[in-house]
Amino acid sequence: MKKEVLKKRIRAVRREMKKAGISSLILTKPANVTYTTGFLGDDSWALITKGCVYLLTDSRYIEQAQKECSCSKIIQHTSSLARAVASLAKKLKSIKVITIEKSASLAEFESLKKHVKARIKTAANIIETVRSVKDSTEIAAIKAAASKSAQALRQTLAYIKPCTTENELAGMLDFQIRRLGATNSFDTIVAFGPNASRPHHQPGRRKLKSKDTVLIDFGARYKGYCSDITRCFALGRPSKFYLKVYDVVQQAQAAAMKMVKAGVRVTKVDAAAREVIRKSDLPVYGHGTGHGFGLEIHESPFLKAKSSEKLEAGQVITIEPGIYLPGKLGVRIEDDVLVTETGCRILTRPPKAGPHSPLLPGSKC
Amino acid sequence: MKKEVLKKRIRAVRREMKKAGISSLILTKPANVTYTTGFLGDDSWALITKGCVYLLTDSRYIEQAQKECSCSKIIQHTSSLARAVASLAKKLKSIKVITIEKSASLAEFESLKKHVKARIKTAANIIETVRSVKDSTEIAAIKAAASKSAQALRQTLAYIKPCTTENELAGMLDFQIRRLGATNSFDTIVAFGPNASRPHHQPGRRKLKSKDTVLIDFGARYKGYCSDITRCFALGRPSKFYLKVYDVVQQAQAAAMKMVKAGVRVTKVDAAAREVIRKSDLPVYGHGTGHGFGLEIHESPFLKAKSSEKLEAGQVITIEPGIYLPGKLGVRIEDDVLVTETGCRILTRPPKAGPHSPLLPGSKC
Repeated sequence: MKKEVLKKRIRAVRREMKKAGISSLILTKPANVTYTTGFLGDDSWALITKGCVYLLTDSRYIEQAQKECSCSKIIQHTSSLARAVASLAKKLKSIKVITIEKSASLAEFESLKKHVKARIKTAANIIETVRSVKDSTEIAAIKAAASKSAQALRQTLAYIKPCTTENELAGMLDFQIRRLGATNSFDTIVAFGPNASRPHHQPGRRKLKSKDTVLIDFGARYKGYCSDITRCFALGRPSKFYLKVYDVVQQAQAAAMKMVKAGVRVTKVDAAAREVIRKSDLPVYGHGTGHGFGLEIHESPFLKAKSSEKLEAGQVITIEPGIYLPGKLGVRIEDDVLVTETGCRILTRPPKAGPHSPLLPGSKC
Repeated sequence: MKKEVLKKRIRAVRREMKKAGISSLILTKPANVTYTTGFLGDDSWALITKGCVYLLTDSRYIEQAQKECSCSKIIQHTSSLARAVASLAKKLKSIKVITIEKSASLAEFESLKKHVKARIKTAANIIETVRSVKDSTEIAAIKAAASKSAQALRQTLAYIKPCTTENELAGMLDFQIRRLGATNSFDTIVAFGPNASRPHHQPGRRKLKSKDTVLIDFGARYKGYCSDITRCFALGRPSKFYLKVYDVVQQAQAAAMKMVKAGVRVTKVDAAAREVIRKSDLPVYGHGTGHGFGLEIHESPFLKAKSSEKLEAGQVITIEPGIYLPGKLGVRIEDDVLVTETGCRILTRPPKAGPHSPLLPGSKC
C-alpha cells in the first residue's frame, strides 16, 4: 500500500479519535487493521497513538507485514496480543488510557484489562466512520473486483448445462475468480429452481434440469476489497410467472437506484424498491434493500426501513431487492453502485444473458 | 441433525451450565449455535434455558432452520437479536439472569444490557468444553471431510504443471472440494518455492517453474466439520537440502504422533516435535505443533510450549511441525489424528507423491 494513501487515512482516523477524545486506540477487527496499516493477514491488532501506528502480529505473518505495512512499526508477539499491548503500553509511558473497539470480544476486553495497567475504555465505529466513504485507491480496487466478478461469471455461464449440480457451478465460479487472481467476498450462493426462495441458500447436490432457473449471488475480493452481485438465469424458456416476477424485481431495483444520491435518506431508497413490489401484489422481501461494502462485505450504510442514515458521496453500496415464494421460486437482482453528488454510478456490468434471453441448454445427462 | 444426537449434546451442555451456576445461556458464536441446534446458517443466536433451546434468526434463514433444527423452537426476529432476546426473556418470566458467551462482542453485550431487563452475566468455554471431545456423528463428519480433502488433492495433483499459478492451483483444489459436495475449512494456501517460508502465505500470481517445490495447506469442510492437511511436493528432483529438511519435518511429526495418547500433556507432544528439529540445527517453527478442530478450524486443545492441558480420548487434533527459511524454503507436514486411550488414529490419508517421488513435470510454458 502506498505511503501517502495510508498517511491520509491515518490522519482522518486521528481526526475521528480526537473528536471522540481518544488518544490511543486498539483495533482488533481485521478490516480496520488492514485499513490503517495495509496488512492483509489475520490474527493481528493495530495500536494507533498520537505519534505512531503499531502492528502487533506473530511469527507467521512477519514477512508479510514487512512487505505490506509501509507506515507501521511491526511488533512480533510470542504469547498473546493483550500481553503485547501491555508491554508496549509500559514502554510508551505516556499511555494512561487505552480505548478498544466495541467489535472486540468480551474475552479480549477482559484479557486486556488483566494485563494492561492503563485505564481501558471502549468506542465504536471510529474507523468504520472513516471507511464508509471510500478513497480513490479503494474505489479502484472495488471496480477491479466487480470487473473480475463479471468476467468470472461470463466464463462460468459456458459451464451451465443440465445435470450440473449447484456445488459444481459454485466451484467453477470460485475457480474462475481464483484464476483471475481474486478470492471470494463470501461463500458463493448457487440456487436452482425453488431453492432460490432461501436468500442465503447453501449450494447442494441438486442437479440442473432442462427447464430450470438459476440464482447466483457471489463476489470476487481483490486487494482486500469486495464486490457483491446477484444474477438470475434460466435454462430454456422459464414460465411467464417467473418472468413477471423478474420484471417486478428489475423495476424495484431501478426505482431504488433512481433515488440514490448524496444526502438522500437510506429509508427513501429502501421504500422505493419495496413500494414497486407491494403494488404488484407480490410478497415484499424480509432483508434490507442494500448495504455498503468495501473491506467487509457488510458495512455502513444499511439500506433498510428504519434508519436515520443519509447517503454520502463516495460510499459504495449494493441495491438488491428480491421476491421469494417458498417452494416455488426466488428472484434477486443485485448491483453495486458508487454514490455521487448527482446520483450514482453502476460498477457491476451484468452479462447479457438473463431469464429473458435464456441460456442454451447443453446435451442431456 | 438426528434428534437423539442433539438431545445428548444439550444434556451435556446443561450439565456444564449447572456446574458453572448458569440457568440461561445465550450462544452467539456460530459453531456453538450449530452444535446445540443443528443450524448451519449465519447471523443467528441460540438461547438455552432449563426447558428449551431457542434459535433466534431472521427471515433469510427461516426455511433452512425449519429443516435443520429438530430440537429447537425457532423464533424469527425483525429488528435485532438483542431485542429478540429481550422480548423472549419478558415472555419467560422465570428468567432473572441471562449469561452470554465471552466470545460475544462488547457491542453485542452492550446492546443486550440496553434491551434486556434480566441481569446479564458472562461465561467462557461452556459449549467449547463439551465440543472438545467429539461424538460419533462428529467423528464421522470429520473422517468424511478428511477423505474428501485427500480425494480433491489427488485430483488436483494431475493439474500441476510448469506455469500453473498459485492462484490457479488453489482455485482448482477448491473446485474439486466443491465438486465433492464440500466447502473450504479456510482459505487454501498454495505456496511455490520460497513463498512457503510464510506459514500463512496467500496464493498469488507466481508461476510454477520446472524444478520448483509446492506447499499446499487446505481442508474440506463437510456437514459443518473441518479437516486440515498440509502437503509438500516437488516438480522434478528437488535439492538435497530440501529433502533433508523434509525428512527432519517428517521425523518431527512422527515423534509428536508417538506421544499422542489420552492423558498426555499437550506440552509433551509439542516438545517432542521441536526437539527433533532443534537437534538437526535447523530453525524451530514459531507456531504451535497442532490444534484441535471440528466445527471451527481452531479449537481446544492447542499444542504449544506453555499449557496445562492434557489430551482426552475423542479429541481430534492436527500435528503440523514445519521448518521455515525466509527467502529459501518452507516445509510443513500436517495430518489429522483422533486421540484414543492407547494412542491415536490418523484420519488423513496422504497421496503417495511427495518431494521424494516428484511429480512429473508437464510440457513447458
